[in-house]
Amino acid sequence: MPEPVDLMLQIEAANGGGQRILDASLDLGKPEYISRVPAVGGICEPIWLRAEGRLRAEYRARVAIDRPDVDLSSLGEVPLHRLPAEAVPYLNESRYCPSNKFHAFVDRRFGELEGGAKVARMRDWIESRFTYVSGSSDAETGALDSFVERRGVCRDYAHVMIALARAAHIPARMASVYALGVKPMDFHAVAEVYLDGDWYMADATGMTRPTQCARICAGRDAADIAFLTAYREIQLVEQEVRVEAYEGK
Amino acid sequence: MPEPVDLMLQIEAANGGGQRILDASLDLGKPEYISRVPAVGGICEPIWLRAEGRLRAEYRARVAIDRPDVDLSSLGEVPLHRLPAEAVPYLNESRYCPSNKFHAFVDRRFGELEGGAKVARMRDWIESRFTYVSGSSDAETGALDSFVERRGVCRDYAHVMIALARAAHIPARMASVYALGVKPMDFHAVAEVYLDGDWYMADATGMTRPTQCARICAGRDAADIAFLTAYREIQLVEQEVRVEAYEGK
Amino acid sequence: MPEPVDLMLQIEAANGGGQRILDASLDLGKPEYISRVPAVGGICEPIWLRAEGRLRAEYRARVAIDRPDVDLSSLGEVPLHRLPAEAVPYLNESRYCPSNKFHAFVDRRFGELEGGAKVARMRDWIESRFTYVSGSSDAETGALDSFVERRGVCRDYAHVMIALARAAHIPARMASVYALGVKPMDFHAVAEVYLDGDWYMADATGMTRPTQCARICAGRDAADIAFLTAYREIQLVEQEVRVEAYEGK
Amino acid sequence: MPEPVDLMLQIEAANGGGQRILDASLDLGKPEYISRVPAVGGICEPIWLRAEGRLRAEYRARVAIDRPDVDLSSLGEVPLHRLPAEAVPYLNESRYCPSNKFHAFVDRRFGELEGGAKVARMRDWIESRFTYVSGSSDAETGALDSFVERRGVCRDYAHVMIALARAAHIPARMASVYALGVKPMDFHAVAEVYLDGDWYMADATGMTRPTQCARICAGRDAADIAFLTAYREIQLVEQEVRVEAYEGK
Repeated sequence: MPEPVDLMLQIEAANGGGQRILDASLDLGKPEYISRVPAVGGICEPIWLRAEGRLRAEYRARVAIDRPDVDLSSLGEVPLHRLPAEAVPYLNESRYCPSNKFHAFVDRRFGELEGGAKVARMRDWIESRFTYVSGSSDAETGALDSFVERRGVCRDYAHVMIALARAAHIPARMASVYALGVKPMDFHAVAEVYLDGDWYMADATGMTRPTQCARICAGRDAADIAFLTAYREIQLVEQEVRVEAYEGK
Repeated sequence: MPEPVDLMLQIEAANGGGQRILDASLDLGKPEYISRVPAVGGICEPIWLRAEGRLRAEYRARVAIDRPDVDLSSLGEVPLHRLPAEAVPYLNESRYCPSNKFHAFVDRRFGELEGGAKVARMRDWIESRFTYVSGSSDAETGALDSFVERRGVCRDYAHVMIALARAAHIPARMASVYALGVKPMDFHAVAEVYLDGDWYMADATGMTRPTQCARICAGRDAADIAFLTAYREIQLVEQEVRVEAYEGK
Repeated sequence: MPEPVDLMLQIEAANGGGQRILDASLDLGKPEYISRVPAVGGICEPIWLRAEGRLRAEYRARVAIDRPDVDLSSLGEVPLHRLPAEAVPYLNESRYCPSNKFHAFVDRRFGELEGGAKVARMRDWIESRFTYVSGSSDAETGALDSFVERRGVCRDYAHVMIALARAAHIPARMASVYALGVKPMDFHAVAEVYLDGDWYMADATGMTRPTQCARICAGRDAADIAFLTAYREIQLVEQEVRVEAYEGK
Repeated sequence: MPEPVDLMLQIEAANGGGQRILDASLDLGKPEYISRVPAVGGICEPIWLRAEGRLRAEYRARVAIDRPDVDLSSLGEVPLHRLPAEAVPYLNESRYCPSNKFHAFVDRRFGELEGGAKVARMRDWIESRFTYVSGSSDAETGALDSFVERRGVCRDYAHVMIALARAAHIPARMASVYALGVKPMDFHAVAEVYLDGDWYMADATGMTRPTQCARICAGRDAADIAFLTAYREIQLVEQEVRVEAYEGK
């Protein structure tokens, strides 16, 4: 960063929502300032900082995952008028998920199912028809493109999953997670659907189970959950993500 | 509605945020159920209902507008790390406002300005270059299209305004309003920008002043603020909006 | 037309290519000028005219259809390097048919078939999954949208058919036709694929057979075959298309 | 190429159209077959070949450029109805140039000019407002994106130039060229506009003059003029373009 830059980091695992932080450390060196902003909805706390030159951010944490490995098919749909306020915006179209276009397809293909069973079938449909191809998408790629191209990376799988769920009037959002089993190891993204009064993960790539994911943050789609947002051009020198299973408690 | 349909209405003027409801009535007939959901961020309370056959919704209110008619140019920019949590998501790209594409244009055209002065110049730029053409856009039209086409209706003006503001790292959202002076009379939409610790209206169509607008609700863009969302196909028979100035208090 | 306007008309049935004009008349009144341009590839002759005020164009023709009602499945694929020059551009992406995005889907869904059998299966696939909905598309709607939305009018069916064929490396173009059996009666559009050394119609709407279509012109997609192109804003007062079967010869 | 692949090469400089091939050699090794297809319109002859394993293609040529370095501003517009058949399709929208969206902008910004003077002003407008950024676009990027983003590489400059010209009802196409002065050296692309009865180059990047360009082929936009089209996935190992000025004749 040749000049001072404002940065927003979303790299800390959230505490709560089916997971507990056992211990954590975050080393950001000495930027000009650091401030935390508790996110709306309370999922995570983005970190703002302003830095210049070279910044090294290192975050380490042990996270206990308490969420059950629920069978999606067993979950019921919440009637629209019973949705809590915080779930309602996740019915709407978003940057990468123009879900209204998928109504006819969803009605026809998954119309006879409901709630979790519908979501599970959608998840399987995507997994069986899409191919995971590193580098096949970029910041412009949306659910429409991915649905047609039948390929993508985790964000694209999640976008299609979200678009299909919303087209069925089931609130759906996108979570960035640290996950076991992702190859190559990197930040991972999964869809989350609102069923039976809570948010449940649905990973259409099939690479992870909810019990293997530590949620960092969630938002409407990839536009909300970047691990790093720089408010001026910067150069990312290196990035490494390591996730390991931890024995004991 | 030949079959029962879930509907979400966002037609009530909000109480607070520079305006007060003096008196109001809402007549929805006898739908199957009605429920209110206080929106996240507290701007408005969408109404859920389920109805069949013919539904007639009539809302009447007197609203006192207290917000000052501030000169946008006088308002300062809030440093990014001082933004409150609720303003942060409005920096992100949304369904109709892929703001990241506008960085170079905004830097070049408005780069020497800051905060409210920058927003005011953007507002004027749009007003002087765009033509208001009824029927020139539809549910697919986004800020990218409108920016190129140089025309649209209020939603399109607002989308471009929002995209430019966000490209300058100023939080911007879209409000649906009842406004004096809109021709033809209809629901109106304006951009709102976060400056000096509050949200300020910026109507790039030039048709209204903040003092003439009663806010209904606000969201990231048109995807969030529809006055009527039907979760099944319906037919809209008739719609009428009337806004009148009210003398006295 | 309050001011003089240049117009291009493509409304005359072509002579040749499986059809013969028995007799025809074209009445354009007295525009400022009229000129014909034999189109590249020789399919049709667009008419240029310049007119002001009110223009009434009336075209009548009897056309004998000689093309056989071939079973697409019986037709073979032309090896790419044997394609005639005039067919090659129809392998490329065009305004409404970004065919490269469909490669994975086409490989997976139709990969085991070849040539005409592949096209026939694609045609059936579209017909069985799409719904014809008048007014569901506009001048912005492309094959990507239609593929996801699973609905459209004749142009949209043709765009998807063309996109799929090109994704399988089979040249495909779009023809505007006068066709028996189209409801409501109007200009109709069908895809044409290049197989076994000639162009064959493939109507994914299932509304017409090749023996019921009189070709007007052909091009890469809807961008090339408009029946009327006005090079300034005009008002279309009325348009009527009537197609009747003609007994005898 | 692990398996046999059909390839289309467009790398030979055209003979005619303001340039003459003095001598040329093309070495393609021993592919399964090679065939030439004289392109429609006669601009170039694409080469089809089928190869497997590793293919090395080397083309060398000396080309004498005879076209004059005309001042675009001096060229007149051809009335629409006088356009030759081959120029007409270049008025239409194409894959990357949805020109109809630019009507209002073009009318407002360049409306008082005509013909070559209008094109020259458009060319200058683009050059002064856009930034050449290697890697800033990809196969999805169209004129709409580039117009908003105000940046791109030669193909993007050309797409915007073409879209603006067509929006002014001036036929415009895209030529791939070998050009002196391009940094880094590579295949180059320029717009060509039809004025005064011929095609004239307009390079909005400002990097080349018509007298420094040897045309390879031309088409509606980048979709038509790829130097290499592979009809199956291949790996491009290396590509080198060298263009040098040649003294004498």
